[in-house]
Amino acid sequence: MGVGLLLSNTYHLYLRPGHELIAQMGGLHRFMSWPGAILTDSGGFQIFSLADLRKVTDEGVRFRSHIDGSEHMLTPEKAVEVQRALGSDIAMVLDECIEYPASRERALGAAERTVNWARRCREAIDAGAPSASTPSQVFFAIVQGGGYADLRRENAARLVELDFPGYAVGGLAVGEPHEITCEMADAAASCLPAEKPRYMMGVGKPSQIADYVRCGIDMMDCVLPTRNARNGCLYTRHGELHIKNAPYMNDPRPIDESCGCMVCRRYSRAYLCHLFRSHEILASILNTHHNLFFFLDLMRAIREAIAFGNLSRFSSEFQARLEAGPS
Amino acid sequence: MGVGLLLSNTYHLYLRPGHELIAQMGGLHRFMSWPGAILTDSGGFQIFSLADLRKVTDEGVRFRSHIDGSEHMLTPEKAVEVQRALGSDIAMVLDECIEYPASRERALGAAERTVNWARRCREAIDAGAPSASTPSQVFFAIVQGGGYADLRRENAARLVELDFPGYAVGGLAVGEPHEITCEMADAAASCLPAEKPRYMMGVGKPSQIADYVRCGIDMMDCVLPTRNARNGCLYTRHGELHIKNAPYMNDPRPIDESCGCMVCRRYSRAYLCHLFRSHEILASILNTHHNLFFFLDLMRAIREAIAFGNLSRFSSEFQARLEAGPS
Repeated sequence: MGVGLLLSNTYHLYLRPGHELIAQMGGLHRFMSWPGAILTDSGGFQIFSLADLRKVTDEGVRFRSHIDGSEHMLTPEKAVEVQRALGSDIAMVLDECIEYPASRERALGAAERTVNWARRCREAIDAGAPSASTPSQVFFAIVQGGGYADLRRENAARLVELDFPGYAVGGLAVGEPHEITCEMADAAASCLPAEKPRYMMGVGKPSQIADYVRCGIDMMDCVLPTRNARNGCLYTRHGELHIKNAPYMNDPRPIDESCGCMVCRRYSRAYLCHLFRSHEILASILNTHHNLFFFLDLMRAIREAIAFGNLSRFSSEFQARLEAGPS
Repeated sequence: MGVGLLLSNTYHLYLRPGHELIAQMGGLHRFMSWPGAILTDSGGFQIFSLADLRKVTDEGVRFRSHIDGSEHMLTPEKAVEVQRALGSDIAMVLDECIEYPASRERALGAAERTVNWARRCREAIDAGAPSASTPSQVFFAIVQGGGYADLRRENAARLVELDFPGYAVGGLAVGEPHEITCEMADAAASCLPAEKPRYMMGVGKPSQIADYVRCGIDMMDCVLPTRNARNGCLYTRHGELHIKNAPYMNDPRPIDESCGCMVCRRYSRAYLCHLFRSHEILASILNTHHNLFFFLDLMRAIREAIAFGNLSRFSSEFQARLEAGPS
């Protein structure tokens, strides 16, 4: 399908099967027999969204496993250690991600801590041995600052001083309006070096991706294509299609008549509706294939539009089709 | 993987999405985009094992759907109609499958009814139009007779008089000892024409398959490779392996070192153990791939042993390895 880079969750792998086991098995690439590149998050975001009894101090984050209730401590140094054991190609420093809305004071505190943690990660990276399975592994820093553009700019500038090979923008798309997300992405990205990757974490919807690209974002990751696929929500150029719905029960058309994916070339909406309603594993497989193809295809189209200098026109045409609704 | 023929369950497809819908979509091959051949059962066996409030009369079987409780009637004529709509390549007549043990009187009654139903199916086949999507569809009759060899022989002889293009042996592996299964398979198969396919329904374990072949059985179907795969039970030349077990958590070896399947060439027991314990969909996918390959490979080895005239030696060597247990 042309996937070059996938994301693995450090939090999940740390708890099960454990980073030491994966290191012992030769690292994550070999463990899951994946020939492409791998990005790991720091584990912090999942702790904030999944773990129990989490407590953030300057030292790190203490939390309980959502699987067995065991207690753990994730520090900046530990985040480096775990991701080195996993052997991802791109790893992330530990940051503090906050809710929206949050007071300026809280946003400032988390941004300060994020810079301090980035510095401690930098020191741990420089002091320790590189990943045994992936010596070329690099770490990206993460810009925080809540919904405050000036905090975002200041945070970015301070992280750039630490000279990382790439930078992420975190703590966005956590409930704020899309305009704020774009304003923050723009503020952060404008203070990050254009010649290094700028990665926006945890986004986005098809209708929003081009907006982030226009802010200067080069990379994104998102659970939407795969999670929604498993829930029967399929993406098309004409908006979302909920394959469970009754009108699709006898619809002989593919999900999206203009899609070139294997699922659209072989299967009808009627078949996919049947698989979903029958709780067949194949429903998840085929829906996921289609949605991933859709997102990859969108990114290809965006790269092409940039190359031809017409991203703005592409974006408004794409948007108009989405809003026109399913055929 | 070299699968030439797969089985689809008429009972399930009749209830959901319905045979008329599948006919409307161009038949089962087109509906699920399967280029190989398809065998459908009559629906009878699933009614006996899954449906509620089933009542067998000479007319047919009345039952309630296990999905929504709706009431249905499956007659020999209806079984023909439904399977013609599905458009399978090989379809089965309706038979009456009984439990084990059963009295001679009950076994005789079910065997009599099975012949009468086969005759009614024959008449419905000859009277009606062939399947629109698969005009070459053929129907097989099914030998019943419980655990009584003489009833099996008589039942087979009477069905042969009706001249079907193939014959199945049903109502076996329902709880009786393996020796009885073989005795019944042998009794039935010995009265069926050797130049026509002889199909034993719902078997079998790897350790038993060669025994059935030596009784003259050419075809079998079984849920074991796929259902067990989803439950983490993997087949190897050295017996079954339960991938969830703790010793596999850090085992770098493949499921079966002598297996040439894609899963054994790429993945460790440790990875498969992790996927299973994490309830990943990929666990079911990879386990199913391996188990299907194992069964297909066993059948290839049996065909080769027959061609070389050493099925008996192959069978005892294969059996000895299975009993020696996992490495």
